Amino acid sequence: MIVALAGGVGGAKLADGLYAELPANSLTVVVNTADDFTLHGLHISPDLDTVMYTLAGVANPETGWGVDKDTFSGLDMLGRYGAPDWFRLGDRDLVTHILRSTALREGSSLTEVTARLGQALGIQAALLPMCDEQVQTIVQTPDGELGFQEYFVHRQCRDQVLGVHFEGLEQASLSDAVRSAISQCEAVIICPSNPIVSVGPILGVPGLRECLLNARVPVIAVSPIIAGQAVKGPAARMLEGLGKQVSVVGVAAEYKELAPVLVIDEDDRDLAGEVAAAGSTPVVAPILMKTPEDRRSLARRVLDIVREVRINNGMSVEDQDSRAEMHA
Amino acid sequence: MIVALAGGVGGAKLADGLYAELPANSLTVVVNTADDFTLHGLHISPDLDTVMYTLAGVANPETGWGVDKDTFSGLDMLGRYGAPDWFRLGDRDLVTHILRSTALREGSSLTEVTARLGQALGIQAALLPMCDEQVQTIVQTPDGELGFQEYFVHRQCRDQVLGVHFEGLEQASLSDAVRSAISQCEAVIICPSNPIVSVGPILGVPGLRECLLNARVPVIAVSPIIAGQAVKGPAARMLEGLGKQVSVVGVAAEYKELAPVLVIDEDDRDLAGEVAAAGSTPVVAPILMKTPEDRRSLARRVLDIVREVRINNGMSVEDQDSRAEMHA
Repeated sequence: MIVALAGGVGGAKLADGLYAELPANSLTVVVNTADDFTLHGLHISPDLDTVMYTLAGVANPETGWGVDKDTFSGLDMLGRYGAPDWFRLGDRDLVTHILRSTALREGSSLTEVTARLGQALGIQAALLPMCDEQVQTIVQTPDGELGFQEYFVHRQCRDQVLGVHFEGLEQASLSDAVRSAISQCEAVIICPSNPIVSVGPILGVPGLRECLLNARVPVIAVSPIIAGQAVKGPAARMLEGLGKQVSVVGVAAEYKELAPVLVIDEDDRDLAGEVAAAGSTPVVAPILMKTPEDRRSLARRVLDIVREVRINNGMSVEDQDSRAEMHA
Repeated sequence: MIVALAGGVGGAKLADGLYAELPANSLTVVVNTADDFTLHGLHISPDLDTVMYTLAGVANPETGWGVDKDTFSGLDMLGRYGAPDWFRLGDRDLVTHILRSTALREGSSLTEVTARLGQALGIQAALLPMCDEQVQTIVQTPDGELGFQEYFVHRQCRDQVLGVHFEGLEQASLSDAVRSAISQCEAVIICPSNPIVSVGPILGVPGLRECLLNARVPVIAVSPIIAGQAVKGPAARMLEGLGKQVSVVGVAAEYKELAPVLVIDEDDRDLAGEVAAAGSTPVVAPILMKTPEDRRSLARRVLDIVREVRINNGMSVEDQDSRAEMHA
């Protein structure tokens, strides 16, 4: 059993590769829910949906989010009614939010309803929200505090990021499902998601970090930053705004308590030494996922690293690195 | 100010004709809500929606219900999730239900949210639910009790109707908006809707019948039955199942306490005497509405009858009839 921690599009891609490479029912994806929000009275879980649609094979291949070949008639009607229409809700996507919202109102936990939706779409992996409590990412900007989707989608990341915090995170608790998955897994993969607003809240759920350290399993992170730039989304601007290093070294610094193996791109090979100094074990590999085969290829590489680390526990950083590279 | 009482498609057509013929903001449509129901956690008001879409000019001209050129992607997704998909919810239509449901949960009354939705669609007439309380039409059949949409849409009216009752109707109350509209109007038009399950519940709201009789205004009903057949829907089968006469005479009997003028089709001319004997004043006119011009034409005729009745208060049935016919 492998546990992956994921945010949205980038995380979903590696989770998809792992799902394709692993036997059925041997992957658990723990997904960020700090950017969940309520719109038109509907509970929207953007990252859970992205991972779910991706693993179900129904994600829009152009955007990475939303449902493939979706229509936008409902969005048009929202506009007619004068309701906010800046969040591009597709008609198929809307149904996910309706069913989730109704189930939550009727007393299901987010963990339960996520499992039901994923199963209905035929996914043979466990999708778990990071917690069942409501957590809200708040981005501090010169214009004041913004909810994450307001910052990310409505204002398209144009605000300078002065700070980020997660309302409700300290009151959240590790769900039995997440605790059990991490306790029983062979390895934890930190997918190439935003370390601040995607992986950050997951690792911030009280008890999760301890659970992960206690599990004493390999932790393999894949950098979302290549050559000083985010593959997608505001990770680079956020790291910069928060005074952090916009590079794989900055990513390593974010994960240093977990001391993971950090898979970095070939373009960042010359930063391997700094990554090691920042507390992670660097492994160099091609990590940009443009095609479905790229996802599988990176997943195979990551799973090879898991085996290497498990077999060669105690080996030096350099040995692990070169051993992993031999498998490429 | 004219008040129209309406159910779904047939009622909406005459309401639309009246809306076109009357000056802006001089029509109030009081709409049946006894066939409202909850599906996927959404509050659906089929008759209110049909009247609203029709007056807003966005109704599907083929079916009479739903939104023109709507898509059904959400319905497809509901099927994928294994959710019931027998009620053909279009994607644009779905948004109406989402906004209504959310507003109701947030504390708005159905009267308030209906006004907001209608205004947003630019309707310059008042749309009023018959009451704000939940009322539920139950159809008794040999297979047991069925909710109205279950009987009407899911089972397509194939069950024998042994009885009909309206759960919650006795506990409902006349809203201030309906009371005020009826008290201040010049005439009440009973649209060609099902007298049992559309107009019946409206007239059954405690206090409405008295309010209507106290207003001492002309009441003009248009028959939904032509030549012993319902123009649309299960009215004929229902009248038959309940042991009532399936004809304009049966319709007159349903409305006899209100003693309205009953506009019947030319095909039913030979039943005029029986209609009079059943308690209504018959007026013969072409009442089948196939085109938008038919709606306006019937509306003009009905408004002429209103004027005739008001001017010639006290005239005999025959005189009113021939006077009205002269205007045709």
